[in-house]
Amino acid sequence: MNQVTIIGLGLIGSSMGMATRASRSGVKVVGYDSNSQVHNRAKRIGAVDDTEWRLDRAVQDADLVVLAVPVLEVRDLLDQMSRSLKPGAAVTDTATTKVSVMGWARDMLPREVGFIGGNPLAGAGLSGQDEARADLFTGVTYPLTPAPRAPAATVDTVVTFVQKLGARPLFVGPEEHDSYVAAVSNLPALLSSALVLAVSSGQGWGEIGRFAADEFRDLSRLAGADPRITQGICSTNPDMVVYWLGELIEQLTALREAVQDPARDEADSALRKRLEGAYEARLRWDIGVSPDTEVPSELMPTTADGMGQMFMGGALWNRIRRTSNPDKDRSRTR
Amino acid sequence: MNQVTIIGLGLIGSSMGMATRASRSGVKVVGYDSNSQVHNRAKRIGAVDDTEWRLDRAVQDADLVVLAVPVLEVRDLLDQMSRSLKPGAAVTDTATTKVSVMGWARDMLPREVGFIGGNPLAGAGLSGQDEARADLFTGVTYPLTPAPRAPAATVDTVVTFVQKLGARPLFVGPEEHDSYVAAVSNLPALLSSALVLAVSSGQGWGEIGRFAADEFRDLSRLAGADPRITQGICSTNPDMVVYWLGELIEQLTALREAVQDPARDEADSALRKRLEGAYEARLRWDIGVSPDTEVPSELMPTTADGMGQMFMGGALWNRIRRTSNPDKDRSRTR
Repeated sequence: MNQVTIIGLGLIGSSMGMATRASRSGVKVVGYDSNSQVHNRAKRIGAVDDTEWRLDRAVQDADLVVLAVPVLEVRDLLDQMSRSLKPGAAVTDTATTKVSVMGWARDMLPREVGFIGGNPLAGAGLSGQDEARADLFTGVTYPLTPAPRAPAATVDTVVTFVQKLGARPLFVGPEEHDSYVAAVSNLPALLSSALVLAVSSGQGWGEIGRFAADEFRDLSRLAGADPRITQGICSTNPDMVVYWLGELIEQLTALREAVQDPARDEADSALRKRLEGAYEARLRWDIGVSPDTEVPSELMPTTADGMGQMFMGGALWNRIRRTSNPDKDRSRTR
Repeated sequence: MNQVTIIGLGLIGSSMGMATRASRSGVKVVGYDSNSQVHNRAKRIGAVDDTEWRLDRAVQDADLVVLAVPVLEVRDLLDQMSRSLKPGAAVTDTATTKVSVMGWARDMLPREVGFIGGNPLAGAGLSGQDEARADLFTGVTYPLTPAPRAPAATVDTVVTFVQKLGARPLFVGPEEHDSYVAAVSNLPALLSSALVLAVSSGQGWGEIGRFAADEFRDLSRLAGADPRITQGICSTNPDMVVYWLGELIEQLTALREAVQDPARDEADSALRKRLEGAYEARLRWDIGVSPDTEVPSELMPTTADGMGQMFMGGALWNRIRRTSNPDKDRSRTR
């Protein structure tokens, strides 16, 4: 590969440029963005070797074109660039939903071009070119959804590119991808917005907000993502998002019942069982223990006793997490 | 004040000891914990000047006793120590709910002792003595609920103690406190558990979990808190927790409808309006702009256009947040 062209020089696009250049693979990085300020900053922070003002010229010599733009802009860009791509070129994207994107690529791109959908699982809570950095993808799981008719060489091009970023390619079907990501990425984003709306809609918010600290800050962070991004994800994956919202509402309704239950402060109450179930599932995910394996009993909070040990479960868990997860991302393969 | 006794040497108790000793106020810090390992570590990390093995001896000379234990242990401890406290002593706690605690203190403590409830809004996502540190309370909002009959001198003792920790005392009634904190502290904790239960209960979790990255990590973190702590909060504040769970379920239901609406990808769709409402409310809270003041238009994502500026709102906001919030905690007074 001689040239990669990155369309969209925000957080993801600029970080990809920085990571590619840092890998010293000799690949030329060309950047394209509709905004001139963004072009200049991309050069200044070392995200690109060069920029182009016209889309056709930006992509015509590229062996790989990366669309690092919100999902709802992918369709138009594929349409605009389709006649300028060279035969044998690989095209990928970075959108959070894949089924729609694969359909657009099938309809818009010529047969000699290979489309491989992508979704780097990185950058949550960050946004904008200002926060771009070369190590954004280090250790990150990077799902890829190759089109069935994509030439093998174009798949190789994208896999090599992803590996040079420091990420771990993971092949998956577009339907599976969208279903899984709806649960662990789209659902948290909507949940975060719902939390903010729930607590801020009433009259008392001015006063209540003074008591909001780290818990609220952490859980509301995703509500601060660009609403157009979240909207695009929902509108290209509505069925799965609706399904997972339903599952969540069911769990919250069950928790509400458990809190109303007069036996709620007993050790074997429904509330305690649910909280322990969540604790254990989170712990298993975090330390990478499969559902069939027993969690070491010293990690379960119920085995600790005495005030001083009250938090031992958490402390031990943190220690194990730190030692067992050298990767920044800590996504794992089971 | 000559002596403070801290009961419970976990994250909060040990951090209080470290902060008090670091303030060089000449106050002797005595620690008490039911666990001997915890005693030894407290000495090693400099959280206490001394420890005591018997509760009565630990508190008998204290001008201030701090109960840094889970809420469900406060009652028994108040009962056990009530006859050993010296007249004029101040007692405070650190539990997340205050109405129950104030009732127990009224019933258990002698008239000559002043009880001032407290709830340092710090330490979310941390747990255990291992993570204790002297600056945990720097800039943190610290709600206080003095008992009506608490002598003024005991209130002063607690206020001075809180200020020496580096925190900002904030007087509030116990009922208001519990209502507010249910919204911005208890609700996020339950929400986090509900998210984990929703996505991990199905058959596909082993596979889905491989796609879980930062969004899921952030939103599920509170599910990793000790279930007994969350249970204690719910059981001492059930009505407010149930109320806020209801508000949240309502918002999620409305979001689900908005995602099902065929017009969901339009700029004036119900989905977009809700996501923008959450974005704006979060932004106002974060930068400390009251609901009556207009948010500078350049901070709203809808005014940015073009791909490159897609994330500008977020980047600008991050910049403003960094400059306007020097405090670690960033809680604010409006």
